[in-house]
Amino acid sequence: MTSSTSRAPVAAEGTRARLIDAALDLFTHCGFAGTSLQMIADQLHVTKAAVYHHFKTRDEILAAVIRPAVEDVKNLIAEASAQRTPTARAERMLTGWVDLALRHRALIGLLQTDPAVKPHLKEEQNASILLDQPRDLLASHLSGPGRQVCAQVALLGIVGAASTPELRELDDETLRDLLLDVGRKILGLRRPRSS
Amino acid sequence: MTSSTSRAPVAAEGTRARLIDAALDLFTHCGFAGTSLQMIADQLHVTKAAVYHHFKTRDEILAAVIRPAVEDVKNLIAEASAQRTPTARAERMLTGWVDLALRHRALIGLLQTDPAVKPHLKEEQNASILLDQPRDLLASHLSGPGRQVCAQVALLGIVGAASTPELRELDDETLRDLLLDVGRKILGLRRPRSS
Repeated sequence: MTSSTSRAPVAAEGTRARLIDAALDLFTHCGFAGTSLQMIADQLHVTKAAVYHHFKTRDEILAAVIRPAVEDVKNLIAEASAQRTPTARAERMLTGWVDLALRHRALIGLLQTDPAVKPHLKEEQNASILLDQPRDLLASHLSGPGRQVCAQVALLGIVGAASTPELRELDDETLRDLLLDVGRKILGLRRPRSS
Repeated sequence: MTSSTSRAPVAAEGTRARLIDAALDLFTHCGFAGTSLQMIADQLHVTKAAVYHHFKTRDEILAAVIRPAVEDVKNLIAEASAQRTPTARAERMLTGWVDLALRHRALIGLLQTDPAVKPHLKEEQNASILLDQPRDLLASHLSGPGRQVCAQVALLGIVGAASTPELRELDDETLRDLLLDVGRKILGLRRPRSS
């Protein structure tokens, strides 16, 4: 069996990526519990066997939907940690965090609104664990008892605002700039010369 | 049947309030789905019949656990809306929001972490509806495309930070002051003379 059908003759990797996109879309609109492998197949005009070639269960698809976001957070933590100065670490973390919040807002919206998803998350996908290091990095250059509070407000406020439906009327570039502005205001960071 | 037992001879209203507190505590530690009326009775050393006198189902208790927070938000909206100037409306909303985020942080933590709760919420308890008016009020004095973004970051950032376990080591008064500071920074509000 191959992953392509006569109706959708694409390479296996392309099908896999499209399956993940279609699954997130269906999870968002029909709920995780209300989405079947057949619905995902129908959405892409492929056979259920074509879906089954890539994913045996809905849980496997959910894991594949979440994995890129978790990897992005880990990569950003590594990248921000490697900066030389505390201010550069905070600035890199903030810029990257805004980008991830926007890139993954459909997934974040799903995690925030669909109660059926949470029981299927693995320990490494636990939101509070994924937030600990970003919070510390955002507070790199700050001191005093308020440093963790500022960083947490920025972290959660940005994630929440990026996935707020009412704010989607702003185009992505505008929303990105506004989120960066408010993040810098909270953290007392200046806009760097080369951004 | 009365609501008091020989072991806990208190007035009905007192029992009801203690039942609600015990229920929130158990929901938080054992999950909504993992808490029975019997467990709530045991926690307070009363009979299951005493619980049943006040609440027939776990859903009724959940509704009673949530009601005060929803009422508090509605009252705050009315109070902030009644202020004379845009700045006073934003300031009243911010101060009240920080207080509610701290007062109800156990409930907010439960709503954020227990997937079993959400399917039992009623439409009027829908988080996004409860956030619309507070966001507008926080942005009362602001203009430009960033006003809603600033307000949403403040709103969600404060709620999130107030219910973050890692920040609980700060005493309530300190955390309140720090959240107010960061809220004012985001919204460009000065600390009023009489607070």
